[in-house]
Amino acid sequence: MEERIKISMLLDLYDELLTDKQRDIMDLYFNDDLSLAEISEITNTSRQAVFDTIKRCEKSLLDYESKLKLFSRNEKLKEIKNIILSKLTNINENTKNDEISLLKHEIEEYILELI
Amino acid sequence: MEERIKISMLLDLYDELLTDKQRDIMDLYFNDDLSLAEISEITNTSRQAVFDTIKRCEKSLLDYESKLKLFSRNEKLKEIKNIILSKLTNINENTKNDEISLLKHEIEEYILELI
Repeated sequence: MEERIKISMLLDLYDELLTDKQRDIMDLYFNDDLSLAEISEITNTSRQAVFDTIKRCEKSLLDYESKLKLFSRNEKLKEIKNIILSKLTNINENTKNDEISLLKHEIEEYILELI
Repeated sequence: MEERIKISMLLDLYDELLTDKQRDIMDLYFNDDLSLAEISEITNTSRQAVFDTIKRCEKSLLDYESKLKLFSRNEKLKEIKNIILSKLTNINENTKNDEISLLKHEIEEYILELI
């Protein structure tokens, strides 16, 4: 996965662990796609300080993931959801059971609540 | 849930975010059930410092949970697992399908990997 996309996904998962200022700068850079110069002006911070904050936060996010593994847990959960759905589809082809069709939809919704 | 049990469960989830020294003290207190005096002697730290560390870490663990919700996500995942298994049991009673019985065991194993 491209590093920038990975950091952006980790930001979604761990942004609560950053300070308000760090979260603002990371959000402007990764979600609003602004340049360092633009972020520097908006946040009234030197361009160098914006750059340092981004690098420090990237390191923190990767560190949180290495310790808590929220991202890889979510990926695993999606994988499990797909395995379960695929197995239920196979069963359903053999039994034509409406309850199984309904359960497949429910499982998709349950898992979506968690990721 | 009793506060001490809750802290012990949060410690399992978030201990990687504590320092080595904090983790040692929390582990001795919550998992090995030692007294402050015993921990003080083992870690060569004053009783007051041990007490302060425990209080500070308890606050950190509750703060991490309020931000990342790993504990409540796990509880939700267990609940979803039970709902899915119960629905599969109902389906199985009607169809007597061996594949459904097998899938129930597999789902239990998948979910156990995640919690």
